Amino acid sequence: MSKVIKNGTIVTADRTWKADVLIRHGKIEAIGPDLHGDHEYDATGCYVMPGGIDPHTHLEMPFMGTYSADDFESGTRAALAGGTTMVVDFCLPSPNQSLLEALQMWDNKTSKAACDYSFHMAITWWGKQVFDEMQTVVDKGITSFKHFMAYKGSLMVNDDEMLASFQRCAELGALPLVHAENGDVVAALSQKLLAEGNNGPEAHAYSRPPEVEGEATNRAIMIADMAGVPLYVVHTSCEQSHEAIRRARQKGMRVYGEPLIQHLVLDESEYFDKDWDHAARRVMSPPFRNKTHQDSLWAGLQAGSLQTVATDHCAFTTDQKRYGVGDFTKIPNGTGGLEDRLPVLWTAGVNTGRLTPNEFVAVTSTNIAKILNMYPQKGAILEGADADVIVWDPKKKKTIAAKSQQSVIDYNVFEGYEVTGLPRYVFTRGELAVNDGKVEAKPGHGQFVGREPKGAV
Amino acid sequence: MSKVIKNGTIVTADRTWKADVLIRHGKIEAIGPDLHGDHEYDATGCYVMPGGIDPHTHLEMPFMGTYSADDFESGTRAALAGGTTMVVDFCLPSPNQSLLEALQMWDNKTSKAACDYSFHMAITWWGKQVFDEMQTVVDKGITSFKHFMAYKGSLMVNDDEMLASFQRCAELGALPLVHAENGDVVAALSQKLLAEGNNGPEAHAYSRPPEVEGEATNRAIMIADMAGVPLYVVHTSCEQSHEAIRRARQKGMRVYGEPLIQHLVLDESEYFDKDWDHAARRVMSPPFRNKTHQDSLWAGLQAGSLQTVATDHCAFTTDQKRYGVGDFTKIPNGTGGLEDRLPVLWTAGVNTGRLTPNEFVAVTSTNIAKILNMYPQKGAILEGADADVIVWDPKKKKTIAAKSQQSVIDYNVFEGYEVTGLPRYVFTRGELAVNDGKVEAKPGHGQFVGREPKGAV
Amino acid sequence: MSKVIKNGTIVTADRTWKADVLIRHGKIEAIGPDLHGDHEYDATGCYVMPGGIDPHTHLEMPFMGTYSADDFESGTRAALAGGTTMVVDFCLPSPNQSLLEALQMWDNKTSKAACDYSFHMAITWWGKQVFDEMQTVVDKGITSFKHFMAYKGSLMVNDDEMLASFQRCAELGALPLVHAENGDVVAALSQKLLAEGNNGPEAHAYSRPPEVEGEATNRAIMIADMAGVPLYVVHTSCEQSHEAIRRARQKGMRVYGEPLIQHLVLDESEYFDKDWDHAARRVMSPPFRNKTHQDSLWAGLQAGSLQTVATDHCAFTTDQKRYGVGDFTKIPNGTGGLEDRLPVLWTAGVNTGRLTPNEFVAVTSTNIAKILNMYPQKGAILEGADADVIVWDPKKKKTIAAKSQQSVIDYNVFEGYEVTGLPRYVFTRGELAVNDGKVEAKPGHGQFVGREPKGAV
Amino acid sequence: MSKVIKNGTIVTADRTWKADVLIRHGKIEAIGPDLHGDHEYDATGCYVMPGGIDPHTHLEMPFMGTYSADDFESGTRAALAGGTTMVVDFCLPSPNQSLLEALQMWDNKTSKAACDYSFHMAITWWGKQVFDEMQTVVDKGITSFKHFMAYKGSLMVNDDEMLASFQRCAELGALPLVHAENGDVVAALSQKLLAEGNNGPEAHAYSRPPEVEGEATNRAIMIADMAGVPLYVVHTSCEQSHEAIRRARQKGMRVYGEPLIQHLVLDESEYFDKDWDHAARRVMSPPFRNKTHQDSLWAGLQAGSLQTVATDHCAFTTDQKRYGVGDFTKIPNGTGGLEDRLPVLWTAGVNTGRLTPNEFVAVTSTNIAKILNMYPQKGAILEGADADVIVWDPKKKKTIAAKSQQSVIDYNVFEGYEVTGLPRYVFTRGELAVNDGKVEAKPGHGQFVGREPKGAV
Ligand SMILES: [Zn+2]
Ligand SMILES: [Zn+2]
Ligand SMILES: [Zn+2]
Ligand SMILES: [Zn+2]
Ligand SMILES: [Zn+2]
Ligand SMILES: [Zn+2]
Ligand SMILES: [Zn+2]
Ligand SMILES: [Zn+2]
Repeated sequence: MSKVIKNGTIVTADRTWKADVLIRHGKIEAIGPDLHGDHEYDATGCYVMPGGIDPHTHLEMPFMGTYSADDFESGTRAALAGGTTMVVDFCLPSPNQSLLEALQMWDNKTSKAACDYSFHMAITWWGKQVFDEMQTVVDKGITSFKHFMAYKGSLMVNDDEMLASFQRCAELGALPLVHAENGDVVAALSQKLLAEGNNGPEAHAYSRPPEVEGEATNRAIMIADMAGVPLYVVHTSCEQSHEAIRRARQKGMRVYGEPLIQHLVLDESEYFDKDWDHAARRVMSPPFRNKTHQDSLWAGLQAGSLQTVATDHCAFTTDQKRYGVGDFTKIPNGTGGLEDRLPVLWTAGVNTGRLTPNEFVAVTSTNIAKILNMYPQKGAILEGADADVIVWDPKKKKTIAAKSQQSVIDYNVFEGYEVTGLPRYVFTRGELAVNDGKVEAKPGHGQFVGREPKGAV
Repeated sequence: MSKVIKNGTIVTADRTWKADVLIRHGKIEAIGPDLHGDHEYDATGCYVMPGGIDPHTHLEMPFMGTYSADDFESGTRAALAGGTTMVVDFCLPSPNQSLLEALQMWDNKTSKAACDYSFHMAITWWGKQVFDEMQTVVDKGITSFKHFMAYKGSLMVNDDEMLASFQRCAELGALPLVHAENGDVVAALSQKLLAEGNNGPEAHAYSRPPEVEGEATNRAIMIADMAGVPLYVVHTSCEQSHEAIRRARQKGMRVYGEPLIQHLVLDESEYFDKDWDHAARRVMSPPFRNKTHQDSLWAGLQAGSLQTVATDHCAFTTDQKRYGVGDFTKIPNGTGGLEDRLPVLWTAGVNTGRLTPNEFVAVTSTNIAKILNMYPQKGAILEGADADVIVWDPKKKKTIAAKSQQSVIDYNVFEGYEVTGLPRYVFTRGELAVNDGKVEAKPGHGQFVGREPKGAV
Repeated sequence: MSKVIKNGTIVTADRTWKADVLIRHGKIEAIGPDLHGDHEYDATGCYVMPGGIDPHTHLEMPFMGTYSADDFESGTRAALAGGTTMVVDFCLPSPNQSLLEALQMWDNKTSKAACDYSFHMAITWWGKQVFDEMQTVVDKGITSFKHFMAYKGSLMVNDDEMLASFQRCAELGALPLVHAENGDVVAALSQKLLAEGNNGPEAHAYSRPPEVEGEATNRAIMIADMAGVPLYVVHTSCEQSHEAIRRARQKGMRVYGEPLIQHLVLDESEYFDKDWDHAARRVMSPPFRNKTHQDSLWAGLQAGSLQTVATDHCAFTTDQKRYGVGDFTKIPNGTGGLEDRLPVLWTAGVNTGRLTPNEFVAVTSTNIAKILNMYPQKGAILEGADADVIVWDPKKKKTIAAKSQQSVIDYNVFEGYEVTGLPRYVFTRGELAVNDGKVEAKPGHGQFVGREPKGAV
Repeated sequence: MSKVIKNGTIVTADRTWKADVLIRHGKIEAIGPDLHGDHEYDATGCYVMPGGIDPHTHLEMPFMGTYSADDFESGTRAALAGGTTMVVDFCLPSPNQSLLEALQMWDNKTSKAACDYSFHMAITWWGKQVFDEMQTVVDKGITSFKHFMAYKGSLMVNDDEMLASFQRCAELGALPLVHAENGDVVAALSQKLLAEGNNGPEAHAYSRPPEVEGEATNRAIMIADMAGVPLYVVHTSCEQSHEAIRRARQKGMRVYGEPLIQHLVLDESEYFDKDWDHAARRVMSPPFRNKTHQDSLWAGLQAGSLQTVATDHCAFTTDQKRYGVGDFTKIPNGTGGLEDRLPVLWTAGVNTGRLTPNEFVAVTSTNIAKILNMYPQKGAILEGADADVIVWDPKKKKTIAAKSQQSVIDYNVFEGYEVTGLPRYVFTRGELAVNDGKVEAKPGHGQFVGREPKGAV
């Protein structure tokens, strides 16, 4: 059974042209004029683009005896609804837990995934076992390792552990990732704020200023430099961090920065809302920043000094957020965004002239596929590539609202944001997941995507 | 009649894969496994890449009643010999000359071109006629306009003229280019040096230090900013100029920088050679710089803050260079490089690990095609693209020597440089121009490539 | 007859200590505990500081057949009222006018000066006569030369003229100054704005954005570098200009930047006032900038990358400003500030913790005296120094208002600004000019201060 | 008994003038023309300057059961011989040792000091006792606290300890100092080098590249920012560290950087000397760097982004250095320099035109006195200041040689360096310590100099 997307304008990271796309067996089989198939989908007036890839999600993430609210079923449905056809989630071993055992646990969560997925493995502790198992993890197609420089006492690793792990990554051809905030300083500032009676959500922002993120980014870069390994900095939210990345790149280093869609369009004033719930729902790390930082992030995407846009989707219900009433450090960190990333970025980025449509594809899909070494299986409109394709209607509008979203949580940090630019059709490995705007995700359709070590860059 | 390149590994700006390439009627007709055609070319052990594009040449350029020594025949033969399948030359109207008349003169030179070519139009004076004719020039497919900030008294334009021209470019969707050196300062320093008795080739370098280039680059960027137009800075040779470009890009501006292969590997010590001829043969503007500047340029290519590598090929014989004996300001400015750009960049860039093969393709071909808005007709290995293709043997070695070069001049600034990485076959619009290393350029085969205004970026 | 300032705390650029100050014959004769004299002035609770020096004023400046409204009488009275005991004014030769003749004209204006003064000589044209007369000007004690990069068609000099003049300064041991804005671009943007119907005062700001100033600063620095001479950039108003200065200083260059008190505390929103008069009264070049630029200037004063604070006092009445109704380019450029510089800087700088009192003295007085090579005759509390001394009451408050000011104009750009910190007494060469807050300036008391070439730095 | 320095030219940080200096009771009693006293010292042709202050020495520092070779007797004699009249040494408590007990131990070493001295207290561990004792230490006049970010397992403190200590400094008005190198990374690189068989002195340099220092500097600055306290970075040796300092200062932060005279003139090639002894004698941390870093440090002194020049004098004999044969990590870290700092800086800084004589005084004496809050008791030529005065003969020459030095060690890292500019006379609190070039230091003359908290800056 074949499908053809007809009359659209294909937009990839490197060019724009009019052609039809023929899909069969989950792959793009042909691209060209006047193609025909069993089912035809009209893309008149639309862009045909590689499906979005979200390199940073936390679906069904364990948290204080419960889990983040969106699991692989609702999370991937939200993703598909917004044009994202693949997610890369984080496997988080407990202290002293085997990486392989953790991986099994995470794999168990994915049975209802509606789109493809991969994993980053977190290095949350260090020892000979971890060192050894990293090889097996790479052999299983997981070639990126996450390091937390914050969350002291739980996920955080020290500089010596990070250097050891980065050196191991270098040997294995794997890519280290960092959550860059100085955990010691965050912990101390948090205690100070609590001691002074600042226990509300706004104190979350006070406890992790941009300097604290910039410092950690700078430190991780130095450690990567010593280890001789590239580096991917997740959720780059501020000029300080971006500056450290730029400085490294201007030495010739291969360092990548990932702004989140939230940091690009939302700002710190959200934390000063008088409604505790409103503010707490926006609590994530790093916190939202001011307009100066937003300008820096946009300029980075334009200049190429920042390469990708992600969500860090880690959704907690208002009830879950309320664990932190009276103590901001107990508010679960995270917001949603999977459904909104592409429409919001198109609206705030392409419609304003900041980004070309090709750059939009690059930062939401192609660059991610390249950096994570799964291009052109993913991130491409090419014959032979996986048929993760979106038909994007640049005129289609909606106002973002929790009541109409796919995520299971009861709010949306973009509530009320008007977007222009939405998917008409979304294909995940050839299966229709959004049909003329209607979500038809198929739980269980998604498959694991293994990745080779030693990416070109 | 069809041709197939077999058993090679295709390398483009964005990926690397094994496939055959079928060429017919000057186009790439198919890419895939196990293709066959009338003629088959073995690419075992080789990379199959888009032919190089040199965005910056001066063939048969008028100079003091004579011409630069390589014309479109020898120049394009040299280009093809080294894997470059297209050149973009500069049309230079005389003061008060009609742009269209000048274009006719330049077009007349191209009848023996062996590879495709295009033009940049220089704005060497300003007036209503120029303003009006720019539209016609764009209509003829020449959508980039060069501005000289140096060569006071001949080619140089002032800031008000440059702003007016940039504003006109903005209206037309054309791209302004600049030769960025402060002409007033160069002229004054030159006179001072001559007055002090410094008349040798080394004084050429003293007369145009990096600061003078950096200043002009910074000024051109400001003017482009005021006009609301992108900017392409030719022959970016130093950290000062690169810094200005980086700073602009970090505001979100679309500014491009073009290092020359000469500036990447040769340094200012050449001007201190005791042999006047040796030094004078290296006289070009900007002059060679020191190692610090080389490092900056390489880092720029790695970081993406510089985008292309060119030659500014403008070859003068030693006899012509000797016009400047006793007065360095009379030494004709220019060196060769068309044949050497790709092998030298591969050797110094890819073999050292600085650049990936994909990045090599980007900076020698694809980025240029994109910036000059002729991608993917040029700069791509795609079905339907022009069959400008090189089969690159990464093991093939030679020592660069004037005696074996295609250029008609009697020396080579890279004399003695050992390269590893050379073309086995070169196709120009499907015609074989290098056959197992032997040059078989066909004078007259080359065609003009028109370009649309309003490139995506 | 001797005077003693008793019970105060002396604050100089380098230290703070309690001592009395004995003044006789216009000089500081002694500093120490328990001094006595014919007249004693109580400085209890006050700081005793070197009088302010304003390095940048335009008193009775010729303009379209009339003159700026404050002359040396009212201007120096305003200065003294605010604690400034010396002004450095600009002598502006007409095109082709002899520098010496112009100097005579300027000297004629000073007969009623109530405080000491010196001149900068402007280089408004270039030729052998100017070259020669510069020596005489230096011999007369005027060792700083101003260059306008804007005001095309009147005061502006081109790059070649500027380089020649800077080289001449280098020979003479004189200091070049620049008004740094790209005059070509300002003129073109102004014409464009007028042609588009933007003729109000807000268009003045649009016509000279920060980029235009930053560019010119960068260019002047390069030219100073080529000439081997230090450089003083007047009215540095923006991050772009400051960045260029910082970059130069980090090469080891001796480049100085002078923020104006206006740019430190007022911003561009003033130009959007609906009252034409309100906006026009604020028209000066460079125009007021936004908060980001203000932050940059304050940081520069803190870091030492900017060295002085001036006023560019050039006062025009509202009637004079109205020459520009219907054409913003005809609004005379300039605002007042002489009386307000010290109280406003103390309030916004010292009271906020940005600057120490010692730094306040440095940027308003001592650094200026050093850079202009008249330290420690001026700018110091030292035995033998001129008795230009202020007794500063850090508790004294007022609200700035045109109705109570010394300047003859009918408005004040700081109207309504509340200051805390005002002079109790002001001495100009030993003469009391402010007595317990009451202005008792003596017209004609002021004398010319000659300065030596070849300042230490 | 009075002394008068006659016929000299006084050079201070802020001015240069001709005057005699009258000394009595250890103080400067008068400055002026034609002074007379019991003893007169001719300063014809000489500069009369504040004695040097070395803010960074380690005399008789405990090391592996022995001590650094120069104690307070030989160390201060060397200091005086070279024009340095005060040293600030580091009190280094052992783990869990009381700060007060350690201070007593250090105080015991000083009985034979020939010039004045003060202490910095090191925070080598953290706890309530340290927190409490810091108040007492400040009360005793020691208002600066040193933190080691390197020397893991011995002196190093972690980020949380450093933040706590910096916050305590903020409360006490004390100044934190840092030795900025990432100790985790140094330890790991050292182990790796040893494991690979690199055990010679050159591996010392490999184990602590500039990036490792720049990172730690950047981190310390962030922590100081969070604590709201100024910061003094000892032995700033590289562009990376300097860049971090500049960046902080351009935010308005009060951060100071201290190049060592060694890093200004010696480079890393010393470590590649084939003679193990030669290389090992140069082992210090940070190690010598290359010319690019030297240029950066000089520019910093010129621009004011770096403020002081020190020695980190910590002298070990060749025998002591040989503890590290076969294991570079066991080579005691440190070099001499106390006698050589002023002559070498004058030669390489003033005689080359990089620094003015006033700047020389600033960076060797006055800035240090100000930052450490003992100005103008020290660092000044003012009536009432301590008579720490040098009569500097700018024509006097010598070649530095171990055989003629005051230090007790058997070599000198500046061996063979020719200096022009040496003391003719040196006075320490009025006592003659160098008499016409002959050293007459008086052991026991030196006194402790207490310093107040809450310095102006
Ligand atoms: Zn995170
Ligand atoms: Zn995350
Ligand atoms: Zn050129
Ligand atoms: Zn050219
Ligand atoms: Zn001006
Ligand atoms: Zn002015
Ligand atoms: Zn140290
Ligand atoms: Zn030390």
